[in-house]
Amino acid sequence: MTKNRLEAFSDGVIAIIITIMVLEMKVPHGAELSDLRPLIPVFLSYVLSFVFLGIYWNNHHHLLHAVHHVDGRVLWPNMNLLFWLSLIPFVTGWMGENHFAPVPVLLYGVALLACAIAYTILVRALIAINGRDSHVARAIGTDKKGYASLAIYVLGIVLALFSPLAAAACYVAVAVLWLIPDRRIERVLKTHES
Amino acid sequence: MTKNRLEAFSDGVIAIIITIMVLEMKVPHGAELSDLRPLIPVFLSYVLSFVFLGIYWNNHHHLLHAVHHVDGRVLWPNMNLLFWLSLIPFVTGWMGENHFAPVPVLLYGVALLACAIAYTILVRALIAINGRDSHVARAIGTDKKGYASLAIYVLGIVLALFSPLAAAACYVAVAVLWLIPDRRIERVLKTHES
Amino acid sequence: MTKNRLEAFSDGVIAIIITIMVLEMKVPHGAELSDLRPLIPVFLSYVLSFVFLGIYWNNHHHLLHAVHHVDGRVLWPNMNLLFWLSLIPFVTGWMGENHFAPVPVLLYGVALLACAIAYTILVRALIAINGRDSHVARAIGTDKKGYASLAIYVLGIVLALFSPLAAAACYVAVAVLWLIPDRRIERVLKTHES
Amino acid sequence: MTKNRLEAFSDGVIAIIITIMVLEMKVPHGAELSDLRPLIPVFLSYVLSFVFLGIYWNNHHHLLHAVHHVDGRVLWPNMNLLFWLSLIPFVTGWMGENHFAPVPVLLYGVALLACAIAYTILVRALIAINGRDSHVARAIGTDKKGYASLAIYVLGIVLALFSPLAAAACYVAVAVLWLIPDRRIERVLKTHES
Repeated sequence: MTKNRLEAFSDGVIAIIITIMVLEMKVPHGAELSDLRPLIPVFLSYVLSFVFLGIYWNNHHHLLHAVHHVDGRVLWPNMNLLFWLSLIPFVTGWMGENHFAPVPVLLYGVALLACAIAYTILVRALIAINGRDSHVARAIGTDKKGYASLAIYVLGIVLALFSPLAAAACYVAVAVLWLIPDRRIERVLKTHES
Repeated sequence: MTKNRLEAFSDGVIAIIITIMVLEMKVPHGAELSDLRPLIPVFLSYVLSFVFLGIYWNNHHHLLHAVHHVDGRVLWPNMNLLFWLSLIPFVTGWMGENHFAPVPVLLYGVALLACAIAYTILVRALIAINGRDSHVARAIGTDKKGYASLAIYVLGIVLALFSPLAAAACYVAVAVLWLIPDRRIERVLKTHES
Repeated sequence: MTKNRLEAFSDGVIAIIITIMVLEMKVPHGAELSDLRPLIPVFLSYVLSFVFLGIYWNNHHHLLHAVHHVDGRVLWPNMNLLFWLSLIPFVTGWMGENHFAPVPVLLYGVALLACAIAYTILVRALIAINGRDSHVARAIGTDKKGYASLAIYVLGIVLALFSPLAAAACYVAVAVLWLIPDRRIERVLKTHES
Repeated sequence: MTKNRLEAFSDGVIAIIITIMVLEMKVPHGAELSDLRPLIPVFLSYVLSFVFLGIYWNNHHHLLHAVHHVDGRVLWPNMNLLFWLSLIPFVTGWMGENHFAPVPVLLYGVALLACAIAYTILVRALIAINGRDSHVARAIGTDKKGYASLAIYVLGIVLALFSPLAAAACYVAVAVLWLIPDRRIERVLKTHES
């Protein structure tokens, strides 16, 4: 199992997911600005999911960059992550078309939570292969940010049925948390190189 | 014919097939959990096909990894495999939307069988080019797993008209058979390297 | 302009074209074998176009393999080829859904002809950059096969309005002509290496 | 952050955007040439957007080619560019289906302007990382062409409500401006190498 091909395949799948999502934004029939109004929630959902997929691509990239050994045991944890990511366009479309109704917002959170759990499993698999003293293990460390994200997703899911807006705010909060670039891996790598 | 570009093209096609399949899962109009119920068979079909495509990607990867020489004679066996794989989203959608009705389940099995035969042809082509003593020939060996899969597919196809559920169980059985990672190629490569 | 990135981008576009074409094959609503009957012409069109795109990918691959220098002057001839190839899913769908009616068969031929002309332009651009004595120039030679293809396409287009079947036979003939692997480039490269 | 993976991911996304755009050109039901007539504006929009995406791919390629250092600070400017490019299929479809009506033509211009601004931000980010004396900084120089494009886009947007045709002419003018290959980067690189 070469790392390059795993990266290339994952990149391909993420690139396609991020791009076909825009197909959920159906071209309206009218030609007035007001015809775009019903699309606003669809557009906002799209922006949020685009950011999340960008974060996953970035983190996946950093993660594999910090890894030395990759073997067959990584394949299915990686496919598992790609599977849950592939459901993002569906839940994004459902949430957007229903103008952030409670159940779709809840399901969107469940999908994000599933992606986050899948990512955590992938991280554990990589650490298991590379050892507790490997770059990747030290770079991830106690993974406070990862566990905080899981907690905020759960909070959002619980809130969704009462206040979809509050749930959406939780999801945005996680995105913001990760938009601030994760320097952990870069720091560890640099320390090692110097 | 460079191996890299053959791999990259195949990865691209498989990545796209695996991802556009999710487009068959149409966003429902209602916003209640019950609106998702008709999608359950579509979702289950998607999961099964996702796993199969993951298996093909993985096996294809291992196969080419074990190969030294690639030339123009490999192109069409490889395109043939990609062709049958490209029909998976169609048969997946048909099976899912018709809630595992007999004929669609039968056709799904035929498509899987066609992919498996195409894969076998590709393996034979690679062995023909690399010789009976090559890594790839020894790694594949008598290919018991491959022939067992073909037999189980045929069984599933025969059963489909009587009991679609039994047929689906056959397909799942093949997937499970391959989910257990194929150590043959890795073992031969390692033996060689040491 | 690095050759690698030009190849990678072209491969990506061709892989996507070849794969989204299957989306034109809409999942039928009924679950009987007879419900698939209207899809037969769509399926046949798909097979033909899949083969053509496979041929283009293969030839494009061999062509760039034989080329030493690539610069900015190649970009637009290459984009031009990708543009015409990108219309293949549309004309394939139109021909298939209308069961090989005269005008769609004619338009399909026009699209194939446009792709072939675009390919010829790309070949000329590459020869212009690499010189008359380059590998690529000698590998292409007098390009009898290319010009024969152009002539057969024109014949097919002319025949389409009288007998769509005869036109389709012309297109199939060109595909068969190219399915027989083009040994020219491989031969020249091998001669050079030895 | 390796440059290669950033390039590969961007190439993948741009290749998918350029290709799924053709899905907006829906196969007509009739089989006569006249049935294609309503598609002419859709086709023209497609051609224009295809050219723009080709230009972006080309410029992005040249830009990264001229860059030595890439780090995490480039990721989000790059994702930002990909985001706005991903909206091109939507605005293209809307403009085409409404036969170049004023508001869709205006929105198309806004999308192009957003892409151009995002590209400028990416250029600034790369120069910030590589320094004022870097290749990329000298290659971009005062970026007259970039600023001229921004001005023509704004002109087109202003004109759109009065004369969509004049606005479209502005967009075409920008495309022509960039079709003439940007020799700046190639020149600087060559000067450096010699």
